Amino acid sequence: MGALHNGHLNLIKQAKQQQSKNTLVVVSIFVNPLQFGPNEDFDRYPRNLKEDLEKLKELADCVFTPEIKNIIGKEELIKMDAGPVSKVLEGKTRPSYFDGVLTIVAKLFNIVQPDVALFGKKDAQQLSIIQQMVTSLNFPVQIISIETQREPDGLAYSSRNKYLNSEDRKISLILFKTLNTGLEEAKKGSKITKILEEMKIYFEENNNLNKIILDYLVVVEAKTFRQIEEEDLVGKLFYLLQPLLGELD
Amino acid sequence: MGALHNGHLNLIKQAKQQQSKNTLVVVSIFVNPLQFGPNEDFDRYPRNLKEDLEKLKELADCVFTPEIKNIIGKEELIKMDAGPVSKVLEGKTRPSYFDGVLTIVAKLFNIVQPDVALFGKKDAQQLSIIQQMVTSLNFPVQIISIETQREPDGLAYSSRNKYLNSEDRKISLILFKTLNTGLEEAKKGSKITKILEEMKIYFEENNNLNKIILDYLVVVEAKTFRQIEEEDLVGKLFYLLQPLLGELD
Repeated sequence: MGALHNGHLNLIKQAKQQQSKNTLVVVSIFVNPLQFGPNEDFDRYPRNLKEDLEKLKELADCVFTPEIKNIIGKEELIKMDAGPVSKVLEGKTRPSYFDGVLTIVAKLFNIVQPDVALFGKKDAQQLSIIQQMVTSLNFPVQIISIETQREPDGLAYSSRNKYLNSEDRKISLILFKTLNTGLEEAKKGSKITKILEEMKIYFEENNNLNKIILDYLVVVEAKTFRQIEEEDLVGKLFYLLQPLLGELD
Repeated sequence: MGALHNGHLNLIKQAKQQQSKNTLVVVSIFVNPLQFGPNEDFDRYPRNLKEDLEKLKELADCVFTPEIKNIIGKEELIKMDAGPVSKVLEGKTRPSYFDGVLTIVAKLFNIVQPDVALFGKKDAQQLSIIQQMVTSLNFPVQIISIETQREPDGLAYSSRNKYLNSEDRKISLILFKTLNTGLEEAKKGSKITKILEEMKIYFEENNNLNKIILDYLVVVEAKTFRQIEEEDLVGKLFYLLQPLLGELD
């Protein structure tokens, strides 16, 4: 969606490194209206195409940046149905979000026809659902997931970080630190309930003025994003949290 | 779905005629469980792969006939959503039919990656919805529609005609003749209500013992399958009925 930050630029560098002969690294920049709800930030979402193109000059072979009218018809009659996995967690507060993401990703795949597509692990549920679409519908593309890029203090790069004032910017770090608390707890071999308990305690103790409203705090199976509640999956937990957090150590 | 009849074989002949250099004519044979409802005829749907392959020997370059387990995962989490056009007419009595058709057609497109795909006009609503999927999601394939093939008395070839006993076979002709009545009426320049009235009269007079239950009798816009009720579309009607009936004259 543009407003390129270090996370995006790292995706593109990884694509360049993995690029095989006679292929192009194509970057798509498209603020997808289908994935914004009626009360979301489509209008004020950061856009800076000129600066983006400048950043891409030395990095990408090709930039695909269509206008809305050329990629979205007056009536999109046939859409992707992201299914049950799209109704939980992020999908719960954003009902048509993942249908909108998949519809555009399917269109981009069909237009650009990439051999390989790289997505960041930051949007973990999105990554899982895109991989599931590719598997379910046999799209001829290989999905590669790339580690989340973080600022020195741990905040994940995100175009929407621009919305944060300096106070909110500081508080937002709680989310990353809460995830870390869970990871540390998992490394100790704790059970799921204990891990979630410790994360919740850390979160609540540090959520000054209750600035952050927690939508969910659950353990999910990394591939399917189905919630895990069993007590007996301790051994798997480190593996489960790892893809979300990336290379912490 | 196999059980090949003259309609299918004509599709393949047309593909052969239009085949460009260095391409293959690929025939898919797959009885798609996703497009059958729980009380439909999946189990007894005619299957005769051996005979089919014999018929294709001289016609096709390649036959793609996957097993169910290789094309449908244990859980198909992400599906196509055929949208509002799939809820009317055929879709009204068969609620998940078109979602199932599109999900498999998308999979076949992604696996085979055809430049061109040929579909019969007999399944008119299916043809319209597949074309709409291709347009909506930018599938890199050109859809070509091929005239309905009919037996000498006018019955469209269909694998399911095998279900008909000789009496039903005779009665089933009413459908074709009712369509013809509409076409004749349209040629005269009649209005939609008059055309539908004449079709209904013909149908009811000939539906011996009320053997056939009419699901719908409507005029639709050929491309979108949206119902037309306006009185002022007379000029378009011949064109609208034409694709359904094929080359009658």
